[in-house]
Amino acid sequence: MLSINIREFLKHQPLFQQLSDEQRELLVPGTREVRGEKGQVIFQKGDPCDGMYLVVYGKVKLSLIAPSGSEKVMEIFHPGQSFAEAVMFLQRPYPLLGQFVEDGMLLHVSSEVIHQAVRNDPGFALHMLAGLSLRLHALVRDVERYSVENATQRVVNYLLQVCKPHQQGANVHLPVNKNLIASRLNLTPETFSRVLHQLSEEGLIEVNGRDILIRQLPELEQYQPG
Amino acid sequence: MLSINIREFLKHQPLFQQLSDEQRELLVPGTREVRGEKGQVIFQKGDPCDGMYLVVYGKVKLSLIAPSGSEKVMEIFHPGQSFAEAVMFLQRPYPLLGQFVEDGMLLHVSSEVIHQAVRNDPGFALHMLAGLSLRLHALVRDVERYSVENATQRVVNYLLQVCKPHQQGANVHLPVNKNLIASRLNLTPETFSRVLHQLSEEGLIEVNGRDILIRQLPELEQYQPG
Repeated sequence: MLSINIREFLKHQPLFQQLSDEQRELLVPGTREVRGEKGQVIFQKGDPCDGMYLVVYGKVKLSLIAPSGSEKVMEIFHPGQSFAEAVMFLQRPYPLLGQFVEDGMLLHVSSEVIHQAVRNDPGFALHMLAGLSLRLHALVRDVERYSVENATQRVVNYLLQVCKPHQQGANVHLPVNKNLIASRLNLTPETFSRVLHQLSEEGLIEVNGRDILIRQLPELEQYQPG
Repeated sequence: MLSINIREFLKHQPLFQQLSDEQRELLVPGTREVRGEKGQVIFQKGDPCDGMYLVVYGKVKLSLIAPSGSEKVMEIFHPGQSFAEAVMFLQRPYPLLGQFVEDGMLLHVSSEVIHQAVRNDPGFALHMLAGLSLRLHALVRDVERYSVENATQRVVNYLLQVCKPHQQGANVHLPVNKNLIASRLNLTPETFSRVLHQLSEEGLIEVNGRDILIRQLPELEQYQPG
């Protein structure tokens, strides 16, 4: 049976990464393994929340069961992710049903041990806030990067579509003004302009008003943003 | 001169959204407007951190200046975003130079007022932790969605590239095995399989081992994940 190093695992959680070793040590007596088989219920909607969970392996789903019995899966958690923190911090009951999607193992950190640490040491809460803030900023950067990549890919695809004469040096005359194209591609005019500018800087296209010269068709076809 | 409702603005910050109105009210005396012109310095690297910032309008950059004088921009913050929270919670000096990229206005929430609230009321810190946790989960969902969209777009582009005979019902024989293709597309084999499965379910392709029948070429060419 797989056994894990709880101290090491906690250290890699955004919530606990900024705690000192001593602060993290206070959590260990309140942390226990929860193993479950596929389909096993972890908590029912409305159960009082007595802690948060970290997924060691396996997958967990949170869902709502309609009165008709149909299930709406709200979220799926993978290894390394955590769930039920917000409910625990707010001291509310679980708003969803939690269930194993496949055989797995979780760590349960009791709300008691966390609340006690926060009460006894304001620095404890500040360090958890710092850990979450750092993680939040990293994620915002990821989302921004993905959004731009996505926008670039959409513009490239559009240019390839309107570029009928498939040859090096094709000249594309945009059929409508840029704001309309941006809106069709579900981009803001600013993002659309930014992407055209970026592709120009990379030497792939040349923009003159509504005329776009595709300088490097094969490169544009192979374009992978990033 | 634009004047804003500080209480309303704080309410929409992830960090403060779960505070009660009374808890948020404690922050108001410690919150002040900071206006600046393009290029103006907000703090120097090494300055003691006396609070966190929220961007109301304009943009801010955080950067490192190398001994040679060259600048490396580490992060840019837009309206609605916040910065310097982690440094404030950890009670460390600013590790970067902060500067207005364009004329703008910020709110500065003093670390004193936040630390005092946390010391006097453990519930204050728990509510901030809940707000950040909720925001974190929403962002993780965004990142997952973008990753899948991105993966799908990459697979679609690959299929279109290997699909030389441009006609409805084209049959593509994958030139190498799926793990190699996945690795070339910088995807895990599981993600690659999942995307093929998804495209099959949508009726765009049919997969038989290494043979892929493109059922709906025009639809595949227009494919926008989401």
